[in-house]
Amino acid sequence: MDLAAVVRRLELERLYADYVGCLDADALERWPDFFTRDCFYRVTSAENYEAGMPLGLIRATSRDMLKDRVSALREANIYEPQRYRHLVAPIRIRGEAPAGLEVEANFLVVRTMQDGEMTLFATGRYVDLVVRAGEDWRFATKEVILDSRRIDTLLAIPL
Amino acid sequence: MDLAAVVRRLELERLYADYVGCLDADALERWPDFFTRDCFYRVTSAENYEAGMPLGLIRATSRDMLKDRVSALREANIYEPQRYRHLVAPIRIRGEAPAGLEVEANFLVVRTMQDGEMTLFATGRYVDLVVRAGEDWRFATKEVILDSRRIDTLLAIPL
Amino acid sequence: MDLAAVVRRLELERLYADYVGCLDADALERWPDFFTRDCFYRVTSAENYEAGMPLGLIRATSRDMLKDRVSALREANIYEPQRYRHLVAPIRIRGEAPAGLEVEANFLVVRTMQDGEMTLFATGRYVDLVVRAGEDWRFATKEVILDSRRIDTLLAIPL
Repeated sequence: MDLAAVVRRLELERLYADYVGCLDADALERWPDFFTRDCFYRVTSAENYEAGMPLGLIRATSRDMLKDRVSALREANIYEPQRYRHLVAPIRIRGEAPAGLEVEANFLVVRTMQDGEMTLFATGRYVDLVVRAGEDWRFATKEVILDSRRIDTLLAIPL
Repeated sequence: MDLAAVVRRLELERLYADYVGCLDADALERWPDFFTRDCFYRVTSAENYEAGMPLGLIRATSRDMLKDRVSALREANIYEPQRYRHLVAPIRIRGEAPAGLEVEANFLVVRTMQDGEMTLFATGRYVDLVVRAGEDWRFATKEVILDSRRIDTLLAIPL
Repeated sequence: MDLAAVVRRLELERLYADYVGCLDADALERWPDFFTRDCFYRVTSAENYEAGMPLGLIRATSRDMLKDRVSALREANIYEPQRYRHLVAPIRIRGEAPAGLEVEANFLVVRTMQDGEMTLFATGRYVDLVVRAGEDWRFATKEVILDSRRIDTLLAIPL
């Protein structure tokens, strides 16, 4: 591993930190900027993922679809206020494809309701393809693979 | 990012690892050493923090106040024995001020009681100003911002 | 810290990421490969560990014993399917012994049952001795120290 590989590794950690920082701050309008224009984004269960099922709880095939989702979320803002906290670790580079880096990361999300109640909301792993975009890195593919198939209806929220 | 920036980044990870290692080991007497002499330390809720409310559940404006708190905790040791486990990830450098580095980190704390019962005790983020102190880094400011406002009375314990 | 120290640090993160990735993928047949031939592996409670009690819930003194355990687990496969998710952070190098690196890491494991129910399964820390094995690192010693002494009988599963 040379200095360039080290730097790349730390840049990836930064990408994931910024990504979950954006979600936890409820700055959803900035969320699509983490993706390429023709990205693939999906939230699915481990069961579906392993069975090769193409469907997902959320599925988008472009950055514009992500923007539409955020708009819809903001208009439909009927749920009670809540906070999310993402823990992400470890992150690992699984491989280098010509198209970019294959990265996996374990995550855990805790949800806190207005009254202060905390719930273990979701655990799982990200299986991503990350590509260079100038100085930054972006998600060309992001698969959010949930360990549980018992999904809260509030899961319209990005993960 | 050059080697110096890489090293600095890893030193910060080390700082947070040592910090939570100290707390999880209940080595509270060493806890004030992670701070500068005229530090600012506060535990508050996200709600208060975002509203700009100056008060906190715990609030100290010097390392000596942190020492006093530890002494008080040790004397008042009336609660049943318990263990804490901090998970911290991701950590990110938000900016460089002349005074030091602005660092944020997500955390989650699990509490385990004597009888073995585990509870999701707290989640939130650290918003810190970290400064050089010789070979080490110290916290000049540490804000512990809790996602939940429903606070256990045992929160006299540092986070 | 020079480039070699930085690289070593990132290699250790990789080791832990691969280790828990193996467990979370239920690829237990690969699990013994993370250990040296004459390794020491133990799962114990913090209480026992601090009291210097040699016994553990799981205790193995060679890689072959780990392989036997995996075989036994596969044959006795009577429990309902479940998933585990390990979060590991922070990791810290506690010291350098002639024999290798002393490494500690905080972990948290969530278990998800077939019906989707998620449980905070275990928290604790790894106290490990990590040694070079060609290009890779391996565990010469791995102590899994659980915060809770209330152990699920399913803990036959490696952690």
